Amino acid sequence: MEESVARQNTGSMPYLVATSQVLGVAALAITGTWLSHYRGGFSWEGAEQFNVHPLCMVLGMVFLCGDALLVYRVFRNETKRATKILHGALHVMALVISLVGIIAVFQFHKNKNIPDMYSMHSWLGIVTFSIYILQWILGFILFFVPGVAFAYKSRFKPLHAFLGLCLLVIAIATCLLGLTEKLLFAIPEQYPHLPAEGVLINVLGLLLVAFGMVIGYILTREEWRRPLLPEERALSIDFRTLTEGGSPTEP
Amino acid sequence: MEESVARQNTGSMPYLVATSQVLGVAALAITGTWLSHYRGGFSWEGAEQFNVHPLCMVLGMVFLCGDALLVYRVFRNETKRATKILHGALHVMALVISLVGIIAVFQFHKNKNIPDMYSMHSWLGIVTFSIYILQWILGFILFFVPGVAFAYKSRFKPLHAFLGLCLLVIAIATCLLGLTEKLLFAIPEQYPHLPAEGVLINVLGLLLVAFGMVIGYILTREEWRRPLLPEERALSIDFRTLTEGGSPTEP
Repeated sequence: MEESVARQNTGSMPYLVATSQVLGVAALAITGTWLSHYRGGFSWEGAEQFNVHPLCMVLGMVFLCGDALLVYRVFRNETKRATKILHGALHVMALVISLVGIIAVFQFHKNKNIPDMYSMHSWLGIVTFSIYILQWILGFILFFVPGVAFAYKSRFKPLHAFLGLCLLVIAIATCLLGLTEKLLFAIPEQYPHLPAEGVLINVLGLLLVAFGMVIGYILTREEWRRPLLPEERALSIDFRTLTEGGSPTEP
Repeated sequence: MEESVARQNTGSMPYLVATSQVLGVAALAITGTWLSHYRGGFSWEGAEQFNVHPLCMVLGMVFLCGDALLVYRVFRNETKRATKILHGALHVMALVISLVGIIAVFQFHKNKNIPDMYSMHSWLGIVTFSIYILQWILGFILFFVPGVAFAYKSRFKPLHAFLGLCLLVIAIATCLLGLTEKLLFAIPEQYPHLPAEGVLINVLGLLLVAFGMVIGYILTREEWRRPLLPEERALSIDFRTLTEGGSPTEP
């Protein structure tokens, strides 16, 4: 009974979700403004092809992935099927946009004869994206393809959720590394005197960290988990396993 | 009853704790080796004063803070008082060592006339350390000073635990930024050709991330929380609040 009340009490969650969106949109707006105003804007050819990379990665691997993680908390009263489709749809967009961003930087390097994959940013980025693809494939097979045994789903679910949050956090760290690299390449002489561009990027870094922290807080509050709807409880043959040893939620 | 069994079943936790220690010690060993072998070793004066900074920050803000977070999980059968003292002692060491690391870099900059506090690394670092100090003061007052109302303690506890993990994660991100900066300052021409030093630092970055991930996984497994000992349950006037709406653990 207590658990039921606790689960329905979302308390400050709506405000925190709103805060995460303000932070995320602000981060995107600053990324776009920075690349347009200081770095020559966007193009699929020439020097500006690089600029597609940061914008796509912040949009895909941070903002959209972050929002995909929130779906089950925010749309807690919708059907499992609907929330699952929205979660998947956001991750399709995140995957496609990130892929465009990655292709942009590799093509840019190739055209400019710049070596690939030597920095910590690139190593961490490629590891994160590879695990993201793996998480995508496993998640799709287990949670979208019909006929998978309930036991497998419920066993993999906590790991899937943990990995999702990890990937978001590491993607943010990778963005910070990329931004630092870019400033040290682009304005090495000016950066120590903290020009407007430097301040903008440092603020962007703090915004990205704050976005990750707020989402992390929402996702780790046990009592804000999406409760099982009455019809799901009726369908579930083993929902005690699904809720990881906790008691079932009262309707 | 189920919860009791789940709480006592620490499953793979000992192996994960061991893994975290291997990763942490490896990261420390690589940091020390890197600074000794490639960066001229340690000294409190001259150019080598800088080298005190990375070693102290990895030891203090990452390794010792990470281990402090694990105390309640690892020493789950010791008294609350003993675990609290160990948690506090590790954080005293972390605080002192990190402070030495921060003083080292500010003194080095001052002596070399290098501008302070312009990079994202420095901004994120100072924000993290300031929140760490705040967390220290609040944690000390609430959990060490006798006479604080139980209601305050149990309300602040989840936020204290969440902030602790956040600080570890952001400290790791700050280390990655610092390592990237250092390589781009020290070996800008060689880094793109991935010399041994570059590989070493990139591997160090991945180890630090893996350390954070393993600790994050251990801390976010609800069923691995430290259960209340029978005598604590007897003393606790409101342990349902303490366990955040969950059922009390059976002895």
